[in-house]
Amino acid sequence: MSLEAHARPATDQGQGQGQGGILLACRFDAAEWARWMPALQAALPGEALWRLDRPQDWPFDVRQQADVAIVANPLPGALVDCPRLGLVQSLWAGVERLMADDSLPEGVTLARMVDPVMNQAMAETAHWAVLGLHRRMFDYARQQQARHWAAQPQRRADEVPVGVLGLGEMGRTTARRLQQAGHPVLGWSRRPCELPGVHTCHGAAGLDRLLASVEILINLLPLTPDTHHLLDAARLDRLPRGAGLVNLARGAHVVEADLLAALARGQIGHAVLDVFATEPLPAEHAFWQHPQVTVLPHAAAQTDPRSAARLAADNIRAWRQGRPVMHPVDRQAGY
Amino acid sequence: MSLEAHARPATDQGQGQGQGGILLACRFDAAEWARWMPALQAALPGEALWRLDRPQDWPFDVRQQADVAIVANPLPGALVDCPRLGLVQSLWAGVERLMADDSLPEGVTLARMVDPVMNQAMAETAHWAVLGLHRRMFDYARQQQARHWAAQPQRRADEVPVGVLGLGEMGRTTARRLQQAGHPVLGWSRRPCELPGVHTCHGAAGLDRLLASVEILINLLPLTPDTHHLLDAARLDRLPRGAGLVNLARGAHVVEADLLAALARGQIGHAVLDVFATEPLPAEHAFWQHPQVTVLPHAAAQTDPRSAARLAADNIRAWRQGRPVMHPVDRQAGY
Repeated sequence: MSLEAHARPATDQGQGQGQGGILLACRFDAAEWARWMPALQAALPGEALWRLDRPQDWPFDVRQQADVAIVANPLPGALVDCPRLGLVQSLWAGVERLMADDSLPEGVTLARMVDPVMNQAMAETAHWAVLGLHRRMFDYARQQQARHWAAQPQRRADEVPVGVLGLGEMGRTTARRLQQAGHPVLGWSRRPCELPGVHTCHGAAGLDRLLASVEILINLLPLTPDTHHLLDAARLDRLPRGAGLVNLARGAHVVEADLLAALARGQIGHAVLDVFATEPLPAEHAFWQHPQVTVLPHAAAQTDPRSAARLAADNIRAWRQGRPVMHPVDRQAGY
Repeated sequence: MSLEAHARPATDQGQGQGQGGILLACRFDAAEWARWMPALQAALPGEALWRLDRPQDWPFDVRQQADVAIVANPLPGALVDCPRLGLVQSLWAGVERLMADDSLPEGVTLARMVDPVMNQAMAETAHWAVLGLHRRMFDYARQQQARHWAAQPQRRADEVPVGVLGLGEMGRTTARRLQQAGHPVLGWSRRPCELPGVHTCHGAAGLDRLLASVEILINLLPLTPDTHHLLDAARLDRLPRGAGLVNLARGAHVVEADLLAALARGQIGHAVLDVFATEPLPAEHAFWQHPQVTVLPHAAAQTDPRSAARLAADNIRAWRQGRPVMHPVDRQAGY
């Protein structure tokens, strides 16, 4: 798709208002551009939108003028040579790659995407995984492959406690939904956090208590130096034997070799994994054909262009008018 | 397991009160008896409980004295020669086999089991299937087998209308839950029925309208002469192309050959089937290895002995005291 059909030149209007145009640093394929470009144009009327990957469409070096960048998984250093840049709005919720980009100036405001539509999608995936573990659906899938007919014992939701790691927007939406479905829900976060109907805890001791108390563990943490490889052999061993693991956050939260060992000895009964140390998951990886592993292709919660473009536009307008932006990244905390 | 350890003889107490003891006509295996017998004894203290399948344990022909039978899937004619029988309490929700038993006298009261725990279990299975269809989880399972990494388009729940056939206790619980999860929900029942937030309809024309309007169809109807083979080629063809079918009621609601043909031409995208024309599903049946079929072993909602034994006991006491029983079977309607 050519940019010419979509972009408006950053001429009088934008520059006249002190607006320097918006750089799009998004590693999209053609199908993604086809969904995002109309949504961004509709949400940002009158704005010059420049694709960083198509300099042949620029009338001049637009990086010298751009005051805002909309990013999705940009390569490190993508935003060097942007002297007027003041706001970087991510279309994704996870910003650990942006945080690792040393070339971003200190003064630039970074904002994450927190979209109720994405939160709902994440809660749906988490709930689907919990129902599948709670109601033995992954066992039944194995039985079907073996043409084996046998009902497994059925328990009530209130007999199956679930732990949620990370109580940001996604974690809270997920915890609330599971609590409404009847599960005892425990939640863990870096800082103390109150959530009605959810037993919350924090800190290393809190995490150990949570792990010992839940049968299903859902990871929705941000990836930071503190949470990197958080789920290692020692922590997986604190779960009750045969527990279910649902990782919907980042592959680097889990030590994959430790998880494989825990699956092999039955410490983890089944794992639902949406994220991996290397993505796409390499064809030779043991997870693909593992009978106790469900592989999802990083699809637990995709950003919806319709809602996310509106939220990005709202944030850009707020920043330009000097109002606070929503969901700014705390560079100290790393998310 | 011997009955001697469990049963109390139907001597003075029971017969003195005009109570003739309770016959247990349940086709349980040993594991099921081990779960049910303690639950029934705890719920019915002081009652003589006689297993129909163990006449060697009877001190006399207990059929001549029994005024109540608790049944689970009994063979036809199991309750002949029971002259004092007045109440037959089923432990299962579906009673089409009892209805087909011509040997049951007209004057006997039949009661179905309607257990909130079973309703919740059914709603969980239905919701799991809906989430799996809505969020492409069955596609991802096929992709995993092929080591294929590709995220599929993601829609919001409010974009995926779901139809529920049958608005009894299970249908209503399921419809309410799906509506709370954000789906537009349409419900169909034999008689007009109001349900907040659910678009309800009835009759043949109502069914046709519902089928044309939903992307996922859940069957929770009772099996009666009117609903036998309801889902045939013509009705499956009224669904939009690629629709999902979830049959959690009875195998005989669906013409299985028509379903296989609809799957083959893509009219039905995927089917989640818990019930079949023949159960257990025969080893040679095409459903077992069909890539578009998920086979569950009639486990969508199992009766929970703990709650169901209490509900059966409540009904038996009500009947003996001349109060109305809960969930009597309407022999005209067939359920």
